[in-house]
Amino acid sequence: MPDPAASDTLGAELLALAAIGADGDGVTRTAWSPQLMQASQWLVERCVDAGATAEIDPAGNVVARWAGRRDAPAVLVGSHIDTVRQGGRYDGALGVLGGLDAARRLHAGGARLGRPLWLAAFNDEEGTRFATSMFGSRAFAGEPLEAELGSADAAGTTVAAAMAAAGSDPASLPGARGLHRVGSYLELHIEQGPVLEEAGAGIGVVTAIVGLLGLRVTLRGQANHAGTTPMDLRRDALAGAARAILSLREHALGHGLRLTVGEIEVAPGGSNVVPGACTFSVDVRTADPAALERAEAAVRDIVTACAAQEGLTAEATRVHRLEPVAMDPAMQAVIHRAAEAEGAQVLELVSGAGHDAMVLGRHVPAAMLFVPSRGGISHNPEEFTTPAHCELGARVLAAAIAVLAT
Amino acid sequence: MPDPAASDTLGAELLALAAIGADGDGVTRTAWSPQLMQASQWLVERCVDAGATAEIDPAGNVVARWAGRRDAPAVLVGSHIDTVRQGGRYDGALGVLGGLDAARRLHAGGARLGRPLWLAAFNDEEGTRFATSMFGSRAFAGEPLEAELGSADAAGTTVAAAMAAAGSDPASLPGARGLHRVGSYLELHIEQGPVLEEAGAGIGVVTAIVGLLGLRVTLRGQANHAGTTPMDLRRDALAGAARAILSLREHALGHGLRLTVGEIEVAPGGSNVVPGACTFSVDVRTADPAALERAEAAVRDIVTACAAQEGLTAEATRVHRLEPVAMDPAMQAVIHRAAEAEGAQVLELVSGAGHDAMVLGRHVPAAMLFVPSRGGISHNPEEFTTPAHCELGARVLAAAIAVLAT
Repeated sequence: MPDPAASDTLGAELLALAAIGADGDGVTRTAWSPQLMQASQWLVERCVDAGATAEIDPAGNVVARWAGRRDAPAVLVGSHIDTVRQGGRYDGALGVLGGLDAARRLHAGGARLGRPLWLAAFNDEEGTRFATSMFGSRAFAGEPLEAELGSADAAGTTVAAAMAAAGSDPASLPGARGLHRVGSYLELHIEQGPVLEEAGAGIGVVTAIVGLLGLRVTLRGQANHAGTTPMDLRRDALAGAARAILSLREHALGHGLRLTVGEIEVAPGGSNVVPGACTFSVDVRTADPAALERAEAAVRDIVTACAAQEGLTAEATRVHRLEPVAMDPAMQAVIHRAAEAEGAQVLELVSGAGHDAMVLGRHVPAAMLFVPSRGGISHNPEEFTTPAHCELGARVLAAAIAVLAT
Repeated sequence: MPDPAASDTLGAELLALAAIGADGDGVTRTAWSPQLMQASQWLVERCVDAGATAEIDPAGNVVARWAGRRDAPAVLVGSHIDTVRQGGRYDGALGVLGGLDAARRLHAGGARLGRPLWLAAFNDEEGTRFATSMFGSRAFAGEPLEAELGSADAAGTTVAAAMAAAGSDPASLPGARGLHRVGSYLELHIEQGPVLEEAGAGIGVVTAIVGLLGLRVTLRGQANHAGTTPMDLRRDALAGAARAILSLREHALGHGLRLTVGEIEVAPGGSNVVPGACTFSVDVRTADPAALERAEAAVRDIVTACAAQEGLTAEATRVHRLEPVAMDPAMQAVIHRAAEAEGAQVLELVSGAGHDAMVLGRHVPAAMLFVPSRGGISHNPEEFTTPAHCELGARVLAAAIAVLAT
């Protein structure tokens, strides 16, 4: 049976956190902002109240530690409390406050776990303000970040300047490294998609986080007068792009890829001008590393073929490519059993979005569990997960920690 | 044989005019600009030198008049000397200076035509600065223009203010009306398309100026996370637009229409967001009034059907609709014979671009002749017509005037 007290606390803390950085109906707490630093300070106090030692590290991560009976590698639970602009109340926040809720429950009455339990709220998971997503978890993992310090936000403020303004010395970043004392990483998160809701499942066990391939494609033909250029003498870059967009989707459907064309521009861009050039983005995601490799070649072949059919040239530039990260099978099994013990219907699924677990999973065994997002909506004030699902997530998280921390 | 003297004058005058408002490799003389007013003054002087009375009328048109032996309705020859931004040296300018060249030739040695010959350089044919194309010819035809006086350019200057700055009183606009004293209108223009060049023809006889239909279509689906939304649960507005763009082209090819999608935008427009909405322009042109009527219904049906296939809604708004204008058959025959007498290969064709002849052809018999544009390029500094073709155009124009003005 649910524990009403724990549920009430989690719900109240989700509301209290959402009030810090409230922005219209949504929440805005971008990296290193006063709103995020205020929320981080609030979280430190909540963790100390729950019996932890807690601090904000040089990367702006909140790290709380409950000692274990043994001085063994810690079980790390985490997520983030930074948000996109006008984001929702659950993205990241649920994983952090659900972790706090679990820690509180596991340490009730002065109980101690076998291993230390750490809780992290990683800074700048979203990458909304700077071009630097997962900055905090990368710093915690000891990955190099020098190149990111010069990135500037829309106002021209660099990461280094924003750190200094928040009271953190960029030179002290190596001090954020903590992962060498961690044995495994566990993250609760809202799904941000519609799959669990559609399936009627309460808990999703993440098998892998997809790899991401980003390409920018430009097709070039000949800009011409819409009135004076006969249809059969045109080299219309947008017609080629339309072909490519449909062919790429066909390919994705046939090969189990998620593929999105989310940006498109034509030049010169007049209602009475045949488009001479068209540039569009291609975002491809799959959990299968070999499929990602094949997908890049396939996208290039498809756009080249579609361009040729329209008398156009094609150029495809890779913007980014991140390899898929598999979640630890033994940890998946622990979550699965814990969820079933709570009576939840469980679904295994791939995470199509990036998460801090993607960074940490490169270094230590990592696993994630999802709870349903109403309507699959996220990065939006309408983001919602029922109190019952939030609580279920926290209880399964607690049960999984109990197993991992023995 | 060509008359070298006349040709040299025409070529030299095209160069001299292009120097006024020279802008990089191109020419910029927008409506009511100091550059256009300077060019207009220069033209008045050239016409007076050629024996005409000439003035700039209240609409900013240059109107030159050579008296005839009889006081009969005039033969009006015209085009425009305003340009798009960084336009070419021939668009409009050839028709005006070719007309001056013809007038000079026809009045050589003090000769007089039967009817008066008028030459007009209409202001603001292009509509580049304000949303007011063919302002000058509409004023000359006595069409109402009150609604246009408040149109503002990018700097916020209204047509009325720009007129005042150029020394013209908006209240005096009715004084620009002159078409009631005109019997027929003749316009020489560069083709601005590739048809004559492809066919190896030197002169195009325009049978009609196409009607223009402009629509703005918006397809709406659901914006979603590119990573977390499975392919089969998407309502992707850009996928619907891609279908529509290809279907619209298919329809145009099957029905003899010129159809262009030259502008497209997606919202929210992120590489990692499934497009929730997509807006695009549809430009349809045909010389057949009934076909234009049917085309509007067909465009609406096609976008609605494509939207439905993708689970989207569609909305199509008419931006403008101008009916086609047929050129006068008897005047076409006059041009045809004059061109053949010059040894030119003649092609009959429809004008896919709007011209001042579209306005004047609503009121008096009107006709147009085209000369080839190299590569079909126009509205571009690369716009080019050979000196031989410029001269041929002026000679055919002169021969046609001679017939019409008897």
